[in-house]
Amino acid sequence: MPAMTELEARFRRLSHIEGAEGVLSWDWAVNMPKGGATVRSAQMATLAEIGHDILTAADLPALFDDAAAELAATAPADQAAADRLGWQQANLAEMRRRHAHATALPADLVRRRAEAASTSEMIWREARAADDFARFAPALAEVLKLEREAAAAKGAALGLPPYEALLDAYDPGRRTADIDRIFARLETELPVIRDAALAAQAARRQPVRPQGPFPVAAQRALGIRLMTMAGFPFDHGRLDVSHHPFSGGVPDDLRITTRYDEADFAESAMAVLHETGHALYEHGLPRDWRDQPVGLARGMTIHESQSLLTEMQASRSRPFMTAFAAAAREAFGADADDPAYDADNLHALMVRVRPGFIRVNADEVTYPGHVMLRYGLERAMIAGDLAVDDLPGAWREGMARLVGVVPDTDRDGCLQDIHWPSGAFGYFPTYSLGAMAAAQLFQAARRALPALDDDLARGDFSGLLGWLRAHVHGQGCRWSADELIERATGAPLSADAFLSHLRRRYLGEGPA
Amino acid sequence: MPAMTELEARFRRLSHIEGAEGVLSWDWAVNMPKGGATVRSAQMATLAEIGHDILTAADLPALFDDAAAELAATAPADQAAADRLGWQQANLAEMRRRHAHATALPADLVRRRAEAASTSEMIWREARAADDFARFAPALAEVLKLEREAAAAKGAALGLPPYEALLDAYDPGRRTADIDRIFARLETELPVIRDAALAAQAARRQPVRPQGPFPVAAQRALGIRLMTMAGFPFDHGRLDVSHHPFSGGVPDDLRITTRYDEADFAESAMAVLHETGHALYEHGLPRDWRDQPVGLARGMTIHESQSLLTEMQASRSRPFMTAFAAAAREAFGADADDPAYDADNLHALMVRVRPGFIRVNADEVTYPGHVMLRYGLERAMIAGDLAVDDLPGAWREGMARLVGVVPDTDRDGCLQDIHWPSGAFGYFPTYSLGAMAAAQLFQAARRALPALDDDLARGDFSGLLGWLRAHVHGQGCRWSADELIERATGAPLSADAFLSHLRRRYLGEGPA
Repeated sequence: MPAMTELEARFRRLSHIEGAEGVLSWDWAVNMPKGGATVRSAQMATLAEIGHDILTAADLPALFDDAAAELAATAPADQAAADRLGWQQANLAEMRRRHAHATALPADLVRRRAEAASTSEMIWREARAADDFARFAPALAEVLKLEREAAAAKGAALGLPPYEALLDAYDPGRRTADIDRIFARLETELPVIRDAALAAQAARRQPVRPQGPFPVAAQRALGIRLMTMAGFPFDHGRLDVSHHPFSGGVPDDLRITTRYDEADFAESAMAVLHETGHALYEHGLPRDWRDQPVGLARGMTIHESQSLLTEMQASRSRPFMTAFAAAAREAFGADADDPAYDADNLHALMVRVRPGFIRVNADEVTYPGHVMLRYGLERAMIAGDLAVDDLPGAWREGMARLVGVVPDTDRDGCLQDIHWPSGAFGYFPTYSLGAMAAAQLFQAARRALPALDDDLARGDFSGLLGWLRAHVHGQGCRWSADELIERATGAPLSADAFLSHLRRRYLGEGPA
Repeated sequence: MPAMTELEARFRRLSHIEGAEGVLSWDWAVNMPKGGATVRSAQMATLAEIGHDILTAADLPALFDDAAAELAATAPADQAAADRLGWQQANLAEMRRRHAHATALPADLVRRRAEAASTSEMIWREARAADDFARFAPALAEVLKLEREAAAAKGAALGLPPYEALLDAYDPGRRTADIDRIFARLETELPVIRDAALAAQAARRQPVRPQGPFPVAAQRALGIRLMTMAGFPFDHGRLDVSHHPFSGGVPDDLRITTRYDEADFAESAMAVLHETGHALYEHGLPRDWRDQPVGLARGMTIHESQSLLTEMQASRSRPFMTAFAAAAREAFGADADDPAYDADNLHALMVRVRPGFIRVNADEVTYPGHVMLRYGLERAMIAGDLAVDDLPGAWREGMARLVGVVPDTDRDGCLQDIHWPSGAFGYFPTYSLGAMAAAQLFQAARRALPALDDDLARGDFSGLLGWLRAHVHGQGCRWSADELIERATGAPLSADAFLSHLRRRYLGEGPA
């Protein structure tokens, strides 16, 4: 198959370039001295250009057609060969998809978009600090103008409505109809759950916070211990510190980060488990397709499902709190009978519902409200139905309706997130779709693993990890995100499992 | 100047790719988990290939000729324009040189060389551990065969004798006649100095070693303090730990490393100053030519001159020992009157002469003997006058003659260095040429800076650094290494200053 072989070689080279970019990005956040930023930006821009050149090469469409013909002419001799052919076909489809995205925009628009985003991000940092939306509005208007242009161009190239064309870059194949259906259900049911959870919470004895300070070295040791429980492969990765926690690197060299607050160890510990979920997904991607597009993660909804499954479903569960409490006591030298380190007490702290202004601090009950707000607003902005100047008012109205609290300032309102300032429209829904997928996958894993709660209570994630490897991680981009969910769980993606999970955890309804 | 502009754009891209490789190499040595090696090798090989493609593009020779015509047609209006034209011409010459090296070898030989070196390095590690030269000999013979082939091909392409063609990759423009002249002088005079120094040393009171343990955190703080004294720009670099100390990164993001021995702080402290010398050279390279070939360091002799000037000439000097002793006392909480931390005592420890088997542990008096041995042997091997099987015997004979001690084992003999196993023939002379250049440059700096000793006694390297920036660092590849030395010192490179330095430091002869 000369065409397919040539394509594989080119995308292998692209994978190495993108892997190098991954290490350089991690280094930027973790190690780089300030004065290295200019040359590092130039290095990364050059690597991005080289990658772009590979993806936009003029002879790719012909190679795609030749490769498709080669695959179509293949008669697999047995099931293994048929399976391999399926992967090759999926690989070719991913190559085409990446080519389509890369060629959808004229080079000039790509450049203007990058420049506008970079300028706007800078102004946004100042405007947020000064709580001055008016200062930021012109920059956001410019970004929005270019995003609308890009959405139209991508939509025309991909045959999608403009907003879906943006969405497709983060969650390939995602359609607004799915999102609307799921979010409508959440909009109806979440306020009911939230209010009932708040009432139940108020009626219970208040949990006790463990008293710090919690030295960084002890918190790091706890983080390593938790990663080890979750199955993090330390011969293929490391834990470091950065301003915002993230998961980076490449599947065989995972770089996750956290930050430490000496007054509170739980936030960092849960951030470590969240990032470990992302990293385990990357590490479990199909080994045979490591350097090909089909071997990459299947978009941000599935990625977020893996971090949220690890953090929200498994690690904040009451069973796991038994292992977590023991590890925390050991890390900080707490007495065995210290009530603050009691597993029930820690669990109560882990699942507190507190409606607030800030998305990244939100609990799992109110988080989707934050996302639905942003989804509605960004769709309206891309459609041309919401002007930038009307954003602060629309934000407050939406917060009242979807989260139940209204911020006094734009800093705690529409200036809080980096997404729009940096030109990322279409990303927000994946957070909550990821939460839905996490609940649905965890429910399926529980069905398949009757001992799961006992395992988690002992800090043993191996059964869960094995199930995820088989049904999610190892599937790469073999299927669409929705096909993957349906194959793994037996049902299309919906809000059912998530809502059951909330009712069980917060209202004590349904099976434990 | 369309051709020159096009060339600058291509070599700018190359500079970004090589910069990215620099960060990836540093990360490999400092951070990378074992399991990341395979994919990292692939990433680095891809970046190297992309760089090689830029350097071997078929249209480069025509672009070079067009650019040369453009430059020749330029009539500079004033001195500044004339100076700029000089830099452009030197830049074009460096582009041609890099192209000539990259195209000198057929792709097949490049690949076979890389494979043989990689295999041989692996076998060498085992053979050295087992002190088993016979096990290593066939691999070295294969490497040598390919190096001889490469030397012949490079020689033909560059119009040089084979060994000089290899040398040229490490020290552009270096000729064996210069080396022979300098080394002949060292061979005559060093044994006399060595024996007199040993006699004088035996007649003095023996210095006292500071008693450890010296905690790593305190050693690191001392290292940072010393780097600060030497002028290391911490907004453009950092200090980390690796198995072997090195200086990496890029000029605006310097990454130096050291290692710590809790029983001895001096070795790490001097290694830090040595690597700081390399890093300061990189940082001082001409800012206007940061991403062009003419903005790069002028070969390994000049590079080593900067590390050795900082370490051997400045930092191991008696004046600097006053500042060093104070910093060390503070780092380790030693009493002000602790005799082990007395500046004279520390100086005596810093300049002890002890002939030994291992090059990297050698003092500055016996070090050149180790280098002359290797130079003679590798020239003979490349010329076909020394067979691999005869190497151990020739090594012992040479050690007796040039260093005055003979190792019992090949592990402490011809198996000690990684250079030949990895195919680096022609590198060794630069260590000692660098030592000559360091002494000669330091002598010139002393002449220009009457307060230098007082400055060093206060830990103030700023005057020295300013002189080096003007005369060495800021010159990039504007001149050949020898032109650079002659412009900076008023004399061609010779052993004079080095021998005077040794006589003054070890025998008390000449002005202090």
